[in-house]
Formats: sequence, structure tokens, C-alpha cells
Amino acid sequence: MRVVQCVPNISEGRDLEKIEKIVEPLKHHQGFKLISYEPDKDYNRTVITLIGDPDQMIMPLIAFVKQAMDLIDMNQHHGEHPRMGAVDVIPFIPIQEVTLDECVDYAKSLADHVSFMYQIPVFLYAKAAQKKERENLPDIRRGEFEGMAEKLKDPMWTPDYGPLSIHPTFGVVAIGARVPLIAFNIDLDTSDEKVASTIAKAIRQSSGGYQYIQAGPALLAERGHVQVTMNILDFKKNPIYRILETVKMEAKRYHVNVMSSEIVGLLPKDAIMDSLKYYYACEKKVFDKTMSFEVITEEAKTYLLFRDFDTKKMIEANM
Amino acid sequence: MRVVQCVPNISEGRDLEKIEKIVEPLKHHQGFKLISYEPDKDYNRTVITLIGDPDQMIMPLIAFVKQAMDLIDMNQHHGEHPRMGAVDVIPFIPIQEVTLDECVDYAKSLADHVSFMYQIPVFLYAKAAQKKERENLPDIRRGEFEGMAEKLKDPMWTPDYGPLSIHPTFGVVAIGARVPLIAFNIDLDTSDEKVASTIAKAIRQSSGGYQYIQAGPALLAERGHVQVTMNILDFKKNPIYRILETVKMEAKRYHVNVMSSEIVGLLPKDAIMDSLKYYYACEKKVFDKTMSFEVITEEAKTYLLFRDFDTKKMIEANM
Repeated sequence: MRVVQCVPNISEGRDLEKIEKIVEPLKHHQGFKLISYEPDKDYNRTVITLIGDPDQMIMPLIAFVKQAMDLIDMNQHHGEHPRMGAVDVIPFIPIQEVTLDECVDYAKSLADHVSFMYQIPVFLYAKAAQKKERENLPDIRRGEFEGMAEKLKDPMWTPDYGPLSIHPTFGVVAIGARVPLIAFNIDLDTSDEKVASTIAKAIRQSSGGYQYIQAGPALLAERGHVQVTMNILDFKKNPIYRILETVKMEAKRYHVNVMSSEIVGLLPKDAIMDSLKYYYACEKKVFDKTMSFEVITEEAKTYLLFRDFDTKKMIEANM
Repeated sequence: MRVVQCVPNISEGRDLEKIEKIVEPLKHHQGFKLISYEPDKDYNRTVITLIGDPDQMIMPLIAFVKQAMDLIDMNQHHGEHPRMGAVDVIPFIPIQEVTLDECVDYAKSLADHVSFMYQIPVFLYAKAAQKKERENLPDIRRGEFEGMAEKLKDPMWTPDYGPLSIHPTFGVVAIGARVPLIAFNIDLDTSDEKVASTIAKAIRQSSGGYQYIQAGPALLAERGHVQVTMNILDFKKNPIYRILETVKMEAKRYHVNVMSSEIVGLLPKDAIMDSLKYYYACEKKVFDKTMSFEVITEEAKTYLLFRDFDTKKMIEANM
């Protein structure tokens, strides 16, 4: 079974009726599932998660873009999250029996359709980027909807698909492909934010740490402790266990313990399996590749200290 | 006291008499010391280490370059190490009360003198580089002595100082400034090179590990075990203890122990002190910033597992 994850973000997070209408074309399909859509009022933005056969997704995604175009007027949009279009970004993420290169092809195919049918300018980003300057989404989005009309006049920012000027109410959209990203937080039994901050610096790429880690400190005021909050951009290169054990090692000097950890959103099953293999090898336990989602969940809680975790957090358990 | 380390490499590692004549101008100075010069026959190259006041070094270095020019003919040179000049490279490294920017100035001053006096083309490299493509020494050296005459015709490779074509017998030289680099090897109690190779991949920048680590496996046939052999390019960002503890953690899954470790060449005292602080904090031991070189040496053996280590391996103990 060929599986991708697709995570469109729309610039509407307040009007629930409107959101329902926009996601309607993505519901009740055989080949893929609408896993979730989570409106955020402050951001005025909704993150939508689809999982399944990419070939089945393209037509419904086109219909979904049309709904967003018809129902959202970016001239009226206000929210805390940077944005440049009614549908702001559509990434394709390979999960199973699909390569990253094939995801680039799906991104191009969708870009071709929506630009041609609705006169929406499209930028290809991340692994689908045609130019180095377009790999990084924030670089494309800089100026946001309000500055985009002017930005597109610069030959450096000619859209990859579609007209040379913005759609008057939709704006522009970025469509791309990227590897799965894991949002991972590690709970420390201290409320001293400096400890989390120093440990984050030790592990993150920007200050000399691991190449595929973005990390920072966060104070969870209600829970009364700090976290090292991070994105793992490539779990094959920087597996969860390595980051967790490095954080434990760094925490030792402050006599701080790692209590638990959490996954925000979904993660591929393999990201857990790869890390369980480490602990099994350390304990000379026989590793069973075919263990059930339920067993994986229990083992992840034991070894990776996941809290608030259930089988449905694994992408594959939703298929 | 202002101190830099300067590590010129010459393209002669076999004719000991010649080598003595070339290093002669660097001996018996008040302001700096000739710490070592270690000829390597296979490489046919000698690495020279100077430590002391940079202002006192410049004139003797100019005389030393002249000796190398007079005594080495690169047209006759064969050796395993890539090279492009009789003196191949001269880096200045800040140690004490000297900034990296000041080391760039010393590099430029030396470059100005040797290019003007001896018609030797000079490339500024590493932190002294004037262009991005010249930061990395291997990029400058690509083509080596034999290809350099042709390479210099390309406007991209116009030398930063001196004539536009190579010196017929000397070739060209790279002069630059960089932070201290630590050559650090970790001994594993196995002869399985695959284990060292997998662990090296986990920690090194090129495969996703720590940003300032270059690492690979090495089999020490006579000692009967493997090493993870590495360069720490910035010990402030990637301290020794963090690398050592990460290697221990990775080795666990193979039930392999870290037996000992070694420093090749010299290292700044601070690189040890920063790491001892970690272990002292873990053990709640009071850290004495003023401990003697002898005490530091003993503690480094205990906590960082250094073998074959003595006080003179610390740059500052040679001053």
C-alpha cells in the first residue's frame, strides 16, 4: 500500500462553519483518510492532516483549494501566524512505498492543476524547490499576503506555476515535499528555564549540536516544569533515543531528571521502532519487528518515556 | 601574555638534514618556542608547531619560508599527503589574549611579506578567507602542485597576494587563521571496525551528528582494538565530555566499552577544564579553577580517560 501524509494549512481558524465547508471535499474517501483538522483561534489558521494513497488525494485537494478560494478573502484575514494565501502551504510527506522524489512529482502535479484552473500563483518549496532560495518556506512567505503583490514583481520571485501576479483574494500558495518531521518535547523535573535553554543549545543544530534538531526551552506553567521542545527534521539521522539520552546526559550536571516526553501530532512507526531497537540491544532483548501497535505503544512509554501517547499517534495506525 | 599557536606544514618529511636547515630560523627565540617538528616519511611532510607571541613570530617565519623556498623543489616532491607548495599551509590559532580577527591580521601581514619578497602567490584560507570558496583548504589545494599553474589562470583562483602564476619551485602557499582544533581518539574494547564506523557516523557532522565533529573508524592493529578517531573543530560548541559520553551511549548497544582515549598533538587547557566542570558538577565536587597542570592531567586521565597524556600536551604548559 502506497501512503503519504499531506498537511495543508488554511488561513481560517475561527469560523467553524466555514472550515467545515472547506474541508468537506476531503471527507469520506476510500483511498485516504482525513485524520484531523485543528483550528487555532490565535493563529486564525487550521492544520489539516490527510493520510493515504496520494493518487486518490489530488482531485479532492483541487476541490478543497477551490472551496478555500471561494470562502476566504485574505484582504480580511488577521492572525498571529505568518501567511500568504487562503491555502497557505501543502506539503506531501512520504510514509510507505512512496519516495520523496515521487512526493515532489505529486506536488508539481497539484501545482499545475490549481494554477491552471484557478489562476493561483504557486511556489514549489522544500524538496520540491526549483531554486535554493525557495527551499525554506519562511523565505518564500516573507512579506506575507500584504507584501506579495509587490514581491512577485521581482524576477527573483516569479512563481513556479500560474500567473505572475497574486490572486486578489486567495494570494499565493506554497506546495512541496519533505521528509516527516517529529515534534518532540522532553519534560525536565525543574522549573528553571535556564536549564532547558542550556540543554537545548547543546543538542540543536544552530548552536553546534545535532544536524537535524531545532530546539528551545519552554515553561509549562500549569504543569509546573520546563521542557526542551524540539523538531526532529530527520529521525533516520537523529533518532529519538539519541536525543533523549543526550538530554539525560546533559541534565545530569544540573541534577535534573528527565521525567517523561511527548510527541505533538503524529509520527511514523519506524521512528519508534528504530529507537526501541537501541534499548532492546542494550538489554539483549530479542526485537520482534512484527509487534502490534499496542505493544509498540507500551514499549514507547517504557523506554522513550512518552506520556499521553496512544496507538493513533502513529501514522500507520490510522490507515 | 599574548599567545598564538602557529602550525606551518612543509613538503619535506624524509631528508632530516634539509628539515633541520629549514626550521633553523624558528629556533632559540625569546618570544616564542619551537615546540615540535615531526617528519612523516609516507606523507613526505613535516608539521611544525610554534607557540608564543605572534609579533615575535612574523620575521622568523619569513626567514623560514625563504629556507623552504631555497631547499625544496616541488617538481621533485612525492608523498601521500596532498600539497601545493614547499611550505604548504601556515595557520595562526588564537590561544590567549589574542582574538581570531587579530590572527587574520597576522596571516595577512605574513602573506604580504612573503608574496612581495619572494614572488610566492598566497591564498588566504579558513577565517582569513576573502571568498567563501577559499574557506576550505582542500578546495584551494585541489589540483595540487602539478595542477596549480593551470588553476591560477582561472579568474576564480587569482591569488589573494603575489604574482598571478606559481613560483616555479615553491608553488603556492595558503596562510590563514582558525580556532584550535583538537585531534581526539576514543578507544573501544573491540576489534570490530563496523562498530567504530557506525558510532563515528552517529557523532559526525557529515552524517547528521554534531556540527563541529569530523570522525571515522580506525583499526589499531598492534594494540588489537578499534578507535573512533576525530577532529573537534570547536571545543566550545562540542566539548570533549559530550562527545565521550555520546560515544559511550552509542557503544552500549554493542556491549562495547570505552577503555581510554587520546589526544594527538596539543590542546588548550580550557578544553579540558570545560569538560572537567561537567563531571565535577555531576558529582557535586567543588571545581578549583586554579588547579595545577599536574592536577588537571590526573583529573583528565580519570574523567576523560586520557592515556599517554602529560602536562606538556596542554598548550599553556609549554609557555
